[in-house]
Amino acid sequence: QSLNNTKSNDDQILEILEKLKKVYQKKILPVEQEYEFEHFNTSSLTPADISSKPMILLIGQYSVVSFELGKTTFIKHLLGKEYQGCNIGPEPTTDKFFAIEGVALNSEPKIIPGNAAGVDTSLPYSSLEFGQNFLNRFQVSQISSSILDSITLIDTPGILSGEKQTRNYDFNGVIEWFAERADMILIIFDAHKLDISDEFKAVINNIKKNDEKIKVVLNKADQVNSQQLMRVYGALMWSLGKVLATPEVPRVYIGSFWDEPLRFNDFETLLVAEQRDLLKDIRQLPRMGMIRKINDIIKRARLAKVHAIIISHLKSNMPGFFGKKDKQQELLLNLEQEFHKIEQIFHISRGDFPDVTKFKERLTYFKIDKFNKLDKNLLAKIDEALNETLPQLLKLFPQNATSNEGINLNLE
Amino acid sequence: QSLNNTKSNDDQILEILEKLKKVYQKKILPVEQEYEFEHFNTSSLTPADISSKPMILLIGQYSVVSFELGKTTFIKHLLGKEYQGCNIGPEPTTDKFFAIEGVALNSEPKIIPGNAAGVDTSLPYSSLEFGQNFLNRFQVSQISSSILDSITLIDTPGILSGEKQTRNYDFNGVIEWFAERADMILIIFDAHKLDISDEFKAVINNIKKNDEKIKVVLNKADQVNSQQLMRVYGALMWSLGKVLATPEVPRVYIGSFWDEPLRFNDFETLLVAEQRDLLKDIRQLPRMGMIRKINDIIKRARLAKVHAIIISHLKSNMPGFFGKKDKQQELLLNLEQEFHKIEQIFHISRGDFPDVTKFKERLTYFKIDKFNKLDKNLLAKIDEALNETLPQLLKLFPQNATSNEGINLNLE
Ligand SMILES: Nc1ncnc2c1ncn2[C@@H]1O[C@H](COP(=O)(O)OP(=O)(O)OP(=O)(O)O)[C@@H](O)[C@H]1O
Ligand SMILES: Nc1ncnc2c1ncn2[C@@H]1O[C@H](COP(=O)(O)OP(=O)(O)OP(=O)(O)O)[C@@H](O)[C@H]1O
Ligand SMILES: [Mg+2]
Ligand SMILES: [Mg+2]
Repeated sequence: QSLNNTKSNDDQILEILEKLKKVYQKKILPVEQEYEFEHFNTSSLTPADISSKPMILLIGQYSVVSFELGKTTFIKHLLGKEYQGCNIGPEPTTDKFFAIEGVALNSEPKIIPGNAAGVDTSLPYSSLEFGQNFLNRFQVSQISSSILDSITLIDTPGILSGEKQTRNYDFNGVIEWFAERADMILIIFDAHKLDISDEFKAVINNIKKNDEKIKVVLNKADQVNSQQLMRVYGALMWSLGKVLATPEVPRVYIGSFWDEPLRFNDFETLLVAEQRDLLKDIRQLPRMGMIRKINDIIKRARLAKVHAIIISHLKSNMPGFFGKKDKQQELLLNLEQEFHKIEQIFHISRGDFPDVTKFKERLTYFKIDKFNKLDKNLLAKIDEALNETLPQLLKLFPQNATSNEGINLNLE
Repeated sequence: QSLNNTKSNDDQILEILEKLKKVYQKKILPVEQEYEFEHFNTSSLTPADISSKPMILLIGQYSVVSFELGKTTFIKHLLGKEYQGCNIGPEPTTDKFFAIEGVALNSEPKIIPGNAAGVDTSLPYSSLEFGQNFLNRFQVSQISSSILDSITLIDTPGILSGEKQTRNYDFNGVIEWFAERADMILIIFDAHKLDISDEFKAVINNIKKNDEKIKVVLNKADQVNSQQLMRVYGALMWSLGKVLATPEVPRVYIGSFWDEPLRFNDFETLLVAEQRDLLKDIRQLPRMGMIRKINDIIKRARLAKVHAIIISHLKSNMPGFFGKKDKQQELLLNLEQEFHKIEQIFHISRGDFPDVTKFKERLTYFKIDKFNKLDKNLLAKIDEALNETLPQLLKLFPQNATSNEGINLNLE
């Protein structure tokens, strides 16, 4: 149950991360900068963006019947210890968002208050812009634990239901921010006291554009007997299917994720296997996150290359001395046609082109003439990244089966 | 697992049935006949209608991946033997509808072909009017078995999917006919090869107005290991919730309903308990059916009484000699107002009145004047049935908990 055996795995990940940063820095970023790519697309990536660890977001609800899902206990169980600032108990306890991050072995645990974390550019929270009231309820808790070498956990306050909804910041917005960035979203339910409030449904509804990341934990499964567990689990799936509305069924881990012995043990085999699978799937996250990261960078590099070709093509159409303004006007007006030309000259597939309207709008802020001609050197570098370095990095990750596979289903 | 211990129970049911027939015959039917109630409502009940046994309808699908749900095997398991005409095997086997009815102990098993069964008024199939092609594929199989003393089972051909839909009669119509009359609808799925085809969804969709009768059997649950069973069961509930769309979750019995030993036995405790519950719930059916029957007759008697009051009130407004036609015309025109008057004079609640438009339409076929005045004697009889006899019969059925209760859920 310890994650220690992932150590060499983590080292490999760290190594690849360094390579990835270097490829990006040396072979992709120069093209982006040469042709002002970030003004046409999202900001260029910082080293912190590339090396940020995969995040697991934990959410669950409070309510009259179940204010004790065991989210924080679950985290303690994963870490093998309590994190700084954590609070476990039968009353609503966690009243803050906690980012639980790893630090080097034997370092002292450390707390960074939300206000400080929000301005620290070495941390990935600078765009968490939900105001003072939120930052007062946000905290980064750094602690050394082997599982945190490769992931970051986000503990959240339970989602209130009914009239108790009195938070003075945009709770749903914050959840959405984390859901966007998380690699896994764990929705926790209590088998002992299953409840899905309307407020909770609204939150799930809000994050369902990230539905491929959603996994479900049916916790405290040993607190009921096998028939009751089946009823509860069936009812949960019945209701979740209606809220999530996708045909794909999310993975549900059924277990009792804490350090105590089982109460009812009819299902011991199942609960042990489920626990093992959850840990296995969490261990996969850095790899999966890595694959996603490399893929994202490949996508970005391809777009940056096409961007460079478009801009330099337009530049090559500019006159030597006079009529620059008119020519820019004309090019902007016939941009659609120019795209067609580029498509043919450079054999670029239509799908890799930016949206014409948006591109045109952005281009009005620049003087085409001021851009440089196509730098063959730069282009050769980005091609090398696209055709060699990045695919080589990807090849280091053989596709692993996840714990949900190998079952005979034919439901859609 | 035998149902023999329900014998005295069955005797009590038979006794009550006899009383119910008598009450209806002596105290309710005379009022219905006196005021032609069946022409304004559904046909008067025959003794066969009242004493028909509760029916369990079994449905399931064929498909490339699962043509062997084990419906017929399930029935064999319930009966303790095979019924006449049954066919069990890995190929699509049951190609007919079978009504499996009980006969007295030690009588020879007997088959009544569909064509004969359809015209036999002592059987409840005379309104199964789906043509010759259907009747050729319908059969009543009579056999002595203790469970059949109190219920009738309907075995059906598997629901085809895709192009194989080549039946030459209204299959969905037939399923609907049985679903209307059944007291329990068992939808059977195969845990080993779960599949829900579009055709099967359409059938479920068709019977969902009877959703309170729908129960689900997840059969062959021992053919997969505990984690696979959980995935399959979860996926089933996920999909069923979307097809059925009700907030209430139907009871799902998870088990292996045949006489062979379990293959995987991680879940032995569960499977044994589920099997026990299903048998218990089937045993409850005659009682539940009885309660429903008495309630239906109470409802019918109340409507028949109001009907008698309305007709005789209208009759009392008719002139002695002349202008009968005009008066009938006038009464029909002002029927709404007359209803209001009756409401006040007789203290009848609005909800017990028939639909004005429909009532008016029906009344045009009759001469109001030809009806008799209110027969105080008849009315006293129906009141006695409503206020004494029927409530007394109902009191013989204390509400029993079903096997789905006692679980802490809060999902809507
Ligand atoms: N697997 C488990 N089985 C049974 N009880 C558990 C389990 N995990 C935690 N608990 C109990 O549930 C209670 C609440 O636990 P915890 O504080 O971890 O919940 P939480 O979801 O973090 O609550 P909050 O939303 O208030 O932060 C505690 O009393 C804990 O002992
Ligand atoms: N509980 C069970 N576990 C495993 N196998 C079973 C079980 N019940 C039945 N079977 C097998 O499944 C096959 C099909 O059974 P059966 O003929 O009863 O299915 P059916 O649903 O009636 O099919 P059809 O729709 O063709 O009438 C048979 O080979 C039988 O032995
Ligand atoms: Mg907590
Ligand atoms: Mg069959």
